[in-house]
Amino acid sequence: MTQTPPPSPATHRTDRHHPDGRPRARGLGVPFDGDCGALNGITDVPGVEVGARTLIEGEGTVGSVVGEGPVRTGVTAIFPRGLAAPLGRVWAGVSAFNGDGEMTGAHWIREGGNFAGPVLLTNTHGVGMTHHAAVKWLTRQPDYHAEADLWLLPVVAETCDAELNDMNGLHVGEADVVAALETAEGGPVAEGNVGGGTGMVCYEFKGGTGTASRRFDLGGKAYHLGALAQANFGRRPWLTVRGVPVGQLMPDDAIGSREQGSIIVVVATDAPLLPVQLQRVARRAGLGMARTGTTGGTGSGDIFLAFSTAGRVEETKLDPLPSLAYIPNDRIDPIFEATVEAVEEAILNALIAAETMTGWNGRRVMALDHARLQEILRAHGRLNET
Amino acid sequence: MTQTPPPSPATHRTDRHHPDGRPRARGLGVPFDGDCGALNGITDVPGVEVGARTLIEGEGTVGSVVGEGPVRTGVTAIFPRGLAAPLGRVWAGVSAFNGDGEMTGAHWIREGGNFAGPVLLTNTHGVGMTHHAAVKWLTRQPDYHAEADLWLLPVVAETCDAELNDMNGLHVGEADVVAALETAEGGPVAEGNVGGGTGMVCYEFKGGTGTASRRFDLGGKAYHLGALAQANFGRRPWLTVRGVPVGQLMPDDAIGSREQGSIIVVVATDAPLLPVQLQRVARRAGLGMARTGTTGGTGSGDIFLAFSTAGRVEETKLDPLPSLAYIPNDRIDPIFEATVEAVEEAILNALIAAETMTGWNGRRVMALDHARLQEILRAHGRLNET
Amino acid sequence: MTQTPPPSPATHRTDRHHPDGRPRARGLGVPFDGDCGALNGITDVPGVEVGARTLIEGEGTVGSVVGEGPVRTGVTAIFPRGLAAPLGRVWAGVSAFNGDGEMTGAHWIREGGNFAGPVLLTNTHGVGMTHHAAVKWLTRQPDYHAEADLWLLPVVAETCDAELNDMNGLHVGEADVVAALETAEGGPVAEGNVGGGTGMVCYEFKGGTGTASRRFDLGGKAYHLGALAQANFGRRPWLTVRGVPVGQLMPDDAIGSREQGSIIVVVATDAPLLPVQLQRVARRAGLGMARTGTTGGTGSGDIFLAFSTAGRVEETKLDPLPSLAYIPNDRIDPIFEATVEAVEEAILNALIAAETMTGWNGRRVMALDHARLQEILRAHGRLNET
Amino acid sequence: MTQTPPPSPATHRTDRHHPDGRPRARGLGVPFDGDCGALNGITDVPGVEVGARTLIEGEGTVGSVVGEGPVRTGVTAIFPRGLAAPLGRVWAGVSAFNGDGEMTGAHWIREGGNFAGPVLLTNTHGVGMTHHAAVKWLTRQPDYHAEADLWLLPVVAETCDAELNDMNGLHVGEADVVAALETAEGGPVAEGNVGGGTGMVCYEFKGGTGTASRRFDLGGKAYHLGALAQANFGRRPWLTVRGVPVGQLMPDDAIGSREQGSIIVVVATDAPLLPVQLQRVARRAGLGMARTGTTGGTGSGDIFLAFSTAGRVEETKLDPLPSLAYIPNDRIDPIFEATVEAVEEAILNALIAAETMTGWNGRRVMALDHARLQEILRAHGRLNET
Repeated sequence: MTQTPPPSPATHRTDRHHPDGRPRARGLGVPFDGDCGALNGITDVPGVEVGARTLIEGEGTVGSVVGEGPVRTGVTAIFPRGLAAPLGRVWAGVSAFNGDGEMTGAHWIREGGNFAGPVLLTNTHGVGMTHHAAVKWLTRQPDYHAEADLWLLPVVAETCDAELNDMNGLHVGEADVVAALETAEGGPVAEGNVGGGTGMVCYEFKGGTGTASRRFDLGGKAYHLGALAQANFGRRPWLTVRGVPVGQLMPDDAIGSREQGSIIVVVATDAPLLPVQLQRVARRAGLGMARTGTTGGTGSGDIFLAFSTAGRVEETKLDPLPSLAYIPNDRIDPIFEATVEAVEEAILNALIAAETMTGWNGRRVMALDHARLQEILRAHGRLNET
Repeated sequence: MTQTPPPSPATHRTDRHHPDGRPRARGLGVPFDGDCGALNGITDVPGVEVGARTLIEGEGTVGSVVGEGPVRTGVTAIFPRGLAAPLGRVWAGVSAFNGDGEMTGAHWIREGGNFAGPVLLTNTHGVGMTHHAAVKWLTRQPDYHAEADLWLLPVVAETCDAELNDMNGLHVGEADVVAALETAEGGPVAEGNVGGGTGMVCYEFKGGTGTASRRFDLGGKAYHLGALAQANFGRRPWLTVRGVPVGQLMPDDAIGSREQGSIIVVVATDAPLLPVQLQRVARRAGLGMARTGTTGGTGSGDIFLAFSTAGRVEETKLDPLPSLAYIPNDRIDPIFEATVEAVEEAILNALIAAETMTGWNGRRVMALDHARLQEILRAHGRLNET
Repeated sequence: MTQTPPPSPATHRTDRHHPDGRPRARGLGVPFDGDCGALNGITDVPGVEVGARTLIEGEGTVGSVVGEGPVRTGVTAIFPRGLAAPLGRVWAGVSAFNGDGEMTGAHWIREGGNFAGPVLLTNTHGVGMTHHAAVKWLTRQPDYHAEADLWLLPVVAETCDAELNDMNGLHVGEADVVAALETAEGGPVAEGNVGGGTGMVCYEFKGGTGTASRRFDLGGKAYHLGALAQANFGRRPWLTVRGVPVGQLMPDDAIGSREQGSIIVVVATDAPLLPVQLQRVARRAGLGMARTGTTGGTGSGDIFLAFSTAGRVEETKLDPLPSLAYIPNDRIDPIFEATVEAVEEAILNALIAAETMTGWNGRRVMALDHARLQEILRAHGRLNET
Repeated sequence: MTQTPPPSPATHRTDRHHPDGRPRARGLGVPFDGDCGALNGITDVPGVEVGARTLIEGEGTVGSVVGEGPVRTGVTAIFPRGLAAPLGRVWAGVSAFNGDGEMTGAHWIREGGNFAGPVLLTNTHGVGMTHHAAVKWLTRQPDYHAEADLWLLPVVAETCDAELNDMNGLHVGEADVVAALETAEGGPVAEGNVGGGTGMVCYEFKGGTGTASRRFDLGGKAYHLGALAQANFGRRPWLTVRGVPVGQLMPDDAIGSREQGSIIVVVATDAPLLPVQLQRVARRAGLGMARTGTTGGTGSGDIFLAFSTAGRVEETKLDPLPSLAYIPNDRIDPIFEATVEAVEEAILNALIAAETMTGWNGRRVMALDHARLQEILRAHGRLNET
């Protein structure tokens, strides 16, 4: 596989390339609508910080034994209000397009329209340990007050990496979760084989973590909306890149399994929204997913979370009659557009950043070939030639 | 059946008696928790107005023929912001405990958290004509502007009165709906065989329309919450009045049919709440219903609507960044208590106000005997002897 | 606008052309995945019959007055088990992607997983009269038994045609609904400016009624799945045809309004499914809609219904322990694929069949130019040159 | 507190007394409707087995330190098909009356209508470790096949025991979960301060684990429905026992806190039901809860699960067209009645079995006084004097 050579440092722009020069979707010339933020990532939303712990250990050879690896997994942590406010609470909405997966904490997000603390993404069988470690870490934070906060309902979501990872070896430990939490920061978000996305497979190419953002004006104010996807879904023939049936034109090395993935999407914005509106935003993540071609396989846990960093939920403990500002429904469409676009681009960024990986029982999942992708897009009049 | 004689006018209190002196539940000594508003009705919520058109025509004799009556039906109209603001929009939530019924407009209430115009209650087969008439009347109002308002999604709910009414005769006409709308006013709400509740049957006694309210303080401010029920559900042995198994002790004249009723509850409050909170309020109407003994029969359309008159939804067309005040969840429990209590009392008020009726095919449904009810409550230490 | 000349009768195939020779999407060379049924319509599902009443009256000139037309509306009726079984009951599921619209009967579909009678589609303000007429017509049918059937909860859905139609003139009458019902039949379904789709606008082109189907094998048996869409949604720049950004390349004559449409989709299949699975099918209609480019505007009532003609709901009145056959979830993906594909194609068929219309206040909405569409698809390597 | 002396062994009946002679609600003379099964517990449903691990360690004295105890917690495990079939899959439905709590696995129960493996109940902060341990234990079972089963979505639910337990000490370990799992068996279920219910508080009395069942005939066949509740909710003045306002008459020793509990209810039946029907059963658990007096406090995670042991979900992997038998909706009301009654009785059994406990920081929560309860019921004509 030929990868595009990195551009000269002078042309580095984080919306188009990774800090190390590897291209993102825009860097390859994949065309998108809308304006992205400076980082083209979920961290364009002020306050949002992302951390990751990536676990890659052991050879991927035939004859794998449960518990002995290979380890191809990890944990991603997203703090809506930053690591320095570990219990920061935000207004939120959740939507399950296809609920064959897990996102803990969803009952209260539906009921109360908010959640506290970080969002954690890991593999399916790592949910328990991640939840346990999050509770332990959070209850040891200085801003946790047992009498006031009482109990925690952490948000932990997952996708299955058993194709490449010794998932039943349960290799995510408490320290790994803490490492993901404590490395959270702003700035460019690492994509591809990183954190919870380490062992993912997407449209039978190597998948992983991806992010993107949009910037838009509403009522004279500028806002950002960012999406982070842990992309682990789809069958090869479905893959569509900006409308082009890329998957049908790149049938090679498809792993040939039935759909058995999932996708978790986290959408963040600083636009103020009511919880009922954030449910609407979350639901629209499904339209972004749809643009990459999936028909929604039965085994895919497609669960979407949206939160707004505007509005202090905490104030409700102090103020007997707080107020929540919100973008009126009549003006909300740019937020919906931003959601659909950012989710689509985040998924493509995951596919483009992910690198070929060999794992469980010697299985090998190929990265999407950048040059071939560009060729196909060019042939369909859909490549931005910069 | 012996009914309690009306009290002397000096003792008239609308929370306990109807303007004509007939007793309501409190007037009979049924004990309740909480403080009610002055009217003990949904109209205690400032701005809420109720109108009704009652249709009682024809003898109820054996050999009824579809289309020829007897007519035992009607329409109830509830304006959240009063008749003078026919298109008044309010924040709202909806909950279906058992969806074997109809409440139009519910899709948008779930999605957008608000609705415009009156809430209309009628019989099951009258939903279409009531919807049609409401659209016609609303689009002819001076505050309707086709370019701005575009389309209407009226809220029309129903329960089935086929036990007593020639429901398939479709006797609710356009003029009847307009009459319900245009008679809306504040003040005491007529209960029993009135409006949409005219032909209802509840726990195999005569049912109908009932209302009640609660008054409570939150953050130093006084608020009201009122409920209006169109009560048409339940089997006799289930009937429980303030915990006393009245239905098992009054088995006479049960009509012996399977559960085939429904209950619509409309909850109004002037406490400011987010749409996601109004969904929670609507859901709690089911706890009030449960207190009267039902186990939730399969054929009962138990659909609940809650709205708040606080917060101007309309302002969203003018203000690019409006704010919505709300009672924080940490302080919301008094609203939930008020809901459960007011719904329970509204149902009992419907049962106590309704009068024996003969209708379709000569069927006769008996009113709940007041004296016998008092006797049973007294025997269980549950009668307020004033 | 240049339209493709009709092919010679010898090449007529109903999956590609209308009986009168006008092309459908496949007839123009729009490429699709999957195999369609012989009719490429919802009527490929055995038993399904469709009727329509189209109301086009009056000149569309500036100065329209409510009540005086122009009339550009209608009613579409879909009988799951055919007109000869007017009260035929089927297992069903419903999903609202964006609930700014109406579909009556949805509460019971969610609760009980089935519905009786035809599905009716009309304009937003015609819902009431259509519901009323349906109840009247159904209760006069020989297979209606008041004692057994008790009450009806008709399924009536809508999209708004106020752009072209004198919607507030309420021109849909009882006789029009009966006409739609009584003309129901199998065979090719009329598309475009027909029935409830008469006055629709889609991606700022003339929209309307469209249909498509897929044929697939499961467990050695052949099944059909068909979709019928009443397409009235989307802004021009969003329009995507098989991945090609057609809307951005055909900006002319866009009506320039904000999103204020809606889409109703009805999916039928003879594959046996549990109600909980039919909810999943209904939800996937949103992925088909997404493929045509929409980002889900706030004002669009996007409500989807799916039903299966397999399994007799009626038998539950006779058999104390009936059984329901179903396709296991492990094998359900072809049904999801068929849904996404058929819905996408049905929307495109609506756009391609609809013809330029002038209506309310002289507004003119242009049909999608077939030749230009072919040109654009060709330029993107996405035209089937037969 | 005076407890009723145990009856002589001759009169032991497990529906009324525990094996050690302590009374259950019926044993005290609390009157109930309906017939219960022989055990009056969830284990009356053939195949259902229950295990528990109870952790009570350390003195409860003022000055508790996180991590040092006192420990007042545990784990309850419910196997729908018995411990010998650890991955047994059943059809199921879930309903959250108030989602301020956790039940993992709910996304798939909503989507697919079934789940695999045991249901585990523990404290709020023990969810993670319990989930982790369940995954580990299940993937080591002989009937787990990684290639076929792929991933697990265990059902782990919780209520908060921080009032009495050092919940932030995270004392539930992997071995405790395994102990709960591996002690599962049929027969009488231990109630009160047991398993996940060990540290619970209900209506400001000591709460815990409770169970009850109903037996009913449908279509000539006998079925059972059983409920198990982990009861940790409610404020004292709300407590109602069979309609009698017991809480208002027993105000002593109320702990005076705001509502901050939760209730998890698991309903099992051998009656065959569709998933959409099991959602309806789950929702009705709320009516049983309501009968004990709660108005549904905001902080209470009231989440209900219902499953049927009829119908083999597993067969869907073998049979391309399986069938699912079901009780028709027209005949389902006895199942709804059984649910409401069994849930109410299970909660009362929890209250009656629980014993006074001193825990965190020396807090003491009193058991409900049996003699006083009987006295109050007698005074209201609601005691069965055997």
